[in-house]
Amino acid sequence: MASPVDRRFVEEMRRLCGAGAVFHEPVDLLAYECDGLPYLRATPSAVALPSTAAQVQAIVRLCHREGVPFVARGHGTGLSGGALPVPGGIVIGLSRMNRVLDVDVPNRRVTVEPGVTNLEVTLRVAPHGLYYAPDPSSQQVCSIGGNIAENSGGAHCLKYGFTTHHVLALDFVLPDGELVHIGGTGGDAVGPDLLGLIVGSEGTLGIVTQAVVRVLPRPERVQTLLAAFDGIDEAGGAVSAIIAAGIVPAAVEIMDALTIQAVEAAVHPGFPPAEAILIVELDGPAREVGALFDTVQDICRARRATAIETARDEESRARIWKGRKAAFAAMGRVSPNYYVQDGVVPRTRLPEVLRRIRELEARSGLRIGNVFHAGDGNLHPLICYDDDVPGDADRAVAAAAEILKYCVEAGGSITGEHGVGADKREFMPVMFTEADLDLMQRVRAAFDPARLCNPGKIFPTPRLCGEVPGPYRQHPAERAGLAERF
Amino acid sequence: MASPVDRRFVEEMRRLCGAGAVFHEPVDLLAYECDGLPYLRATPSAVALPSTAAQVQAIVRLCHREGVPFVARGHGTGLSGGALPVPGGIVIGLSRMNRVLDVDVPNRRVTVEPGVTNLEVTLRVAPHGLYYAPDPSSQQVCSIGGNIAENSGGAHCLKYGFTTHHVLALDFVLPDGELVHIGGTGGDAVGPDLLGLIVGSEGTLGIVTQAVVRVLPRPERVQTLLAAFDGIDEAGGAVSAIIAAGIVPAAVEIMDALTIQAVEAAVHPGFPPAEAILIVELDGPAREVGALFDTVQDICRARRATAIETARDEESRARIWKGRKAAFAAMGRVSPNYYVQDGVVPRTRLPEVLRRIRELEARSGLRIGNVFHAGDGNLHPLICYDDDVPGDADRAVAAAAEILKYCVEAGGSITGEHGVGADKREFMPVMFTEADLDLMQRVRAAFDPARLCNPGKIFPTPRLCGEVPGPYRQHPAERAGLAERF
Repeated sequence: MASPVDRRFVEEMRRLCGAGAVFHEPVDLLAYECDGLPYLRATPSAVALPSTAAQVQAIVRLCHREGVPFVARGHGTGLSGGALPVPGGIVIGLSRMNRVLDVDVPNRRVTVEPGVTNLEVTLRVAPHGLYYAPDPSSQQVCSIGGNIAENSGGAHCLKYGFTTHHVLALDFVLPDGELVHIGGTGGDAVGPDLLGLIVGSEGTLGIVTQAVVRVLPRPERVQTLLAAFDGIDEAGGAVSAIIAAGIVPAAVEIMDALTIQAVEAAVHPGFPPAEAILIVELDGPAREVGALFDTVQDICRARRATAIETARDEESRARIWKGRKAAFAAMGRVSPNYYVQDGVVPRTRLPEVLRRIRELEARSGLRIGNVFHAGDGNLHPLICYDDDVPGDADRAVAAAAEILKYCVEAGGSITGEHGVGADKREFMPVMFTEADLDLMQRVRAAFDPARLCNPGKIFPTPRLCGEVPGPYRQHPAERAGLAERF
Repeated sequence: MASPVDRRFVEEMRRLCGAGAVFHEPVDLLAYECDGLPYLRATPSAVALPSTAAQVQAIVRLCHREGVPFVARGHGTGLSGGALPVPGGIVIGLSRMNRVLDVDVPNRRVTVEPGVTNLEVTLRVAPHGLYYAPDPSSQQVCSIGGNIAENSGGAHCLKYGFTTHHVLALDFVLPDGELVHIGGTGGDAVGPDLLGLIVGSEGTLGIVTQAVVRVLPRPERVQTLLAAFDGIDEAGGAVSAIIAAGIVPAAVEIMDALTIQAVEAAVHPGFPPAEAILIVELDGPAREVGALFDTVQDICRARRATAIETARDEESRARIWKGRKAAFAAMGRVSPNYYVQDGVVPRTRLPEVLRRIRELEARSGLRIGNVFHAGDGNLHPLICYDDDVPGDADRAVAAAAEILKYCVEAGGSITGEHGVGADKREFMPVMFTEADLDLMQRVRAAFDPARLCNPGKIFPTPRLCGEVPGPYRQHPAERAGLAERF
C-alpha cells in the first residue's frame, strides 16, 4: 500500500511547522527507526518537529483528516519500543519543545514543555533547594513527555512513587487535534481521573504539549550504604527486615555477581567482592535519617553482611550510584549484546523467582545478570547473548519471555516501569481476559476512534498492513513463535 | 413517564436474587432516598440487595436489557449525593456483600467484598500489626465500595494518600453485566491505568464486586500534639514551617473557634481556649518520630502557640481525635442545621481564602465554621443555618458555592475528597472547558454507552425526564439560580 504521506502531505506539514522542521529523506529518517529497544525497527514516512502546541495540533489535525498514523517521540530512550514508528505514518518529535515555562517555588510546581529532560527540571529548581523525584537511570537525556507516556519510575520510586504521582496537570492534544486541559493543581481528581489514565498510556491517547509537575524539597540529609552479601537470598532477607522495621528507604537496590563484575569492568566503582550487593539510601530530616541509618546497619550486620560501606561524602555516594546506574550499559563489558527485561514479583516470592532464573541460566547456557529495585520487587534481568552467533538473540528473547512467565505465575506482572510498548504486546493476554482487553480498547477508542495515535502498541493487534516482516521488523519473540509458547 | 420497573421486573429481580433481597413498597424505599447529603432526595422504583457478584451481574444485565437506570449504594454515608437514586430506576445495595475473603499477611493484602466497612479491614489485620490507611471520619460505618467510588481520603491522606493509592485490584461489573478484572498486585499499571480511572469515578462506570486493598504495618510509634493559637493564620504559619522543615506528618488538622466551641459542647474534649487549634500527628519508627516530634514542638513554640498539649497515652490521643472527628456532627450543638462543603486551595493561598470566608461570614450573617486538612489545603467549611427560617438554607448553599468560587479563583478545586456527585455537577463548567467535559463523557460512554449507570452524577446533564422538581428534588443551588451566578 502506498503511504498517504506524499510530497503534497510533506509540503503541507512544512507550511504548518516551517521548512526546517519536517524531514522525509531516508538519511534523515534513520535516527527515528527505533528507540532504546533496537530489536524493533521501522521507518516512518516523515518526521515533524513542531515547536509549539498549536503546531502539534495542526499536524495532528492533518493526520486525522488524511488518515495518517502518527507516533509521538520524546528523546527516544524508552525500553519497550513505545516510540517505534509506524511504516507509512509519521513521527512527531517533541525535542524542540524544550522550554521550562514557569518555576513556582512557593507552591513547588514547575511547568514544562514535553521535550525538557528529566534532569533539567531538577537543575532549574536546585537553587531553591527543590528537586524532581522520579529518576529513571536515563534521567540525563530522557524527556518529561516520554516519562509521562511511560509512567517512568527509577531507583527512588519505592518511597516517592512513579511519574504519575508527580504530574499535576497536562495540556494534551487529542488524536483529532483538539487541545484539552487535564488534571488540576489541588488534591483528589475532580470527576473521572483522566490524568491518571493518560500518564502511562504509552502515547496511545494523545500528545502532551505542556505539563505541570510537582517538585519536592531536597531532603535535609541523605545517607547511603552498600552492603556485601554471600548470596542474593541473604541480601533479599535484609531488605525484608528493613521493610518489616517500618523503614521506607529512598532506594533499595540489589545487584548480583555478574552485574557487579560488569560494572567493575566498566566504571570501576571499587565494590567489595560479593555474590550480591545491596544499596540502601535513606533521606529526610537529619534527625530522622541519623536514627534510622543505625537501624539499617544493625539489620545488615544481623543478616551477616560480609562488608558494609557507608558513603562519607557526596563523592563516595556518587561512586556507589555510578556503579548502580551504569549497570545496564556495563553489560557490554561482559557480553557483545544484552537484552533488558522488566518484570514484577511480590516481594515474598522473590527468592523463588530468582531460583527459577538461575535454573534457566544453567539450562539455556545464557548468562543472566540481575539488577533490581528490591523494595518493590521490580526485576531487571539482563540477558547476555552474541548477535554473531546464529539463534543466540532468539534464545535471549525466549529466556526473557520465560522470566516474565515466572513473574506472572508468582502473582506479579510483565512490566514494572518500562511499559508494554511494541515489545510485550503479545503477552497481554497472559495477564488479561478478552473482556479486560476489550474494555481497554474501548477506552482507547474514546480518545482515538480512528486508531491513528501510536497504533500497534500495548495491545496484541494484528500486524499493520504496511508493516513488512524482516530481520528487524518482526519481534524476535514472534519469530521464535514465543507468543504461542508463552 | 411510567417506570419500566413494573411488577414483572420486580418478580424477575426476585428470581435472580431471592425474594428477601428485593424491595419495592414505598415504606421500604424510604431509607434509600438520599445518602449523607439530605438536601437531595429521590425515590427509586425498587431496591435489590444482591449477595454475590453473579447476582450483581444478573441484575445489571436485566437493567441493561430493559433500559432501567441503576445506582450502586454502599452504606450511604457519601456527602455529595453520589448514591442519590434515579426516579424510575433501581438502587443496587451492596450491604449484603460484606465478607472479608482473604487476609494475606506476608504480602500485606486483604481481599474484601464492597460492603465491608472501612474499619473492619483494620480490625481484621490488627492482630498481625497491620492496618488500612485511608480513614474518612465515617470509617466506622462507610463501606470500602463507597470509598472506592468516591476515592475517599481522611485525616491521614497527606502522608498516606487517598483510597486510589491503596487499591490494588478490582472485580468490576460493567454496565452491560460483563465482569472484568482490573489492576493487578504489582507495581505500575500494565497498559492504560483503568484502576486509577475507576477509583473515584463516583459509581458512573460500573459496580465493584471485589477489591484487593493494601494494608500497612502499624507504625512503631505514633505521637500527637495539639497546639492552641491566637488565630488561624498563626496556626497556618506553623503548618507551613513544619512542611518546609521536610517533615511529612501523618496528619495536620486545623479547627477554628466556632468549631472548637461546637465540639466542646458536643463531646467535651477539654481543648484549651483558642482561636485556632492545630493537631499534628507523626508516625513511623520510634527513633524517627521521637526526633521529629521535638522539631514540631520547637516550631509551634517559635510560632507563638499559646498552649501545647502532647498526648501521653492512647487515651489522651483518642480524646484529641474524638474532638476532631466529631466536628461535623457537633455543629448540631451550635446550629439547628449545617451544610458541609469540600474545596481545595494551594497551601500558600490559604490565608487569603480564609480571609474571604470571614468577609463572607460577616456579609451573609451566617456563621461559618472551618475544619481543614491543612497539609493539603483541603477546606471543609461548615455553614450554619436554620431550616425553619425561610430562605436560610438557600443562603447557606449560596455561601458554600461562593466559597468554592474562592477556591477555584485561588487555583484550587471544587472538591478535595467528597466528590462531585449530584451536589456539584453544575459547577463542573467552572473548572473545565466543553472539550474537557466532552472527553470525560466519551470515556464514560466507553463503559456505559446506554447511560444507565448512576446517570445525573458528576456531569452537568439536563435533568432526567422522570425527575420531578420539588423541595427536595431540585438542588438548592439550582433553586437559587446559583449555577448561573457562580
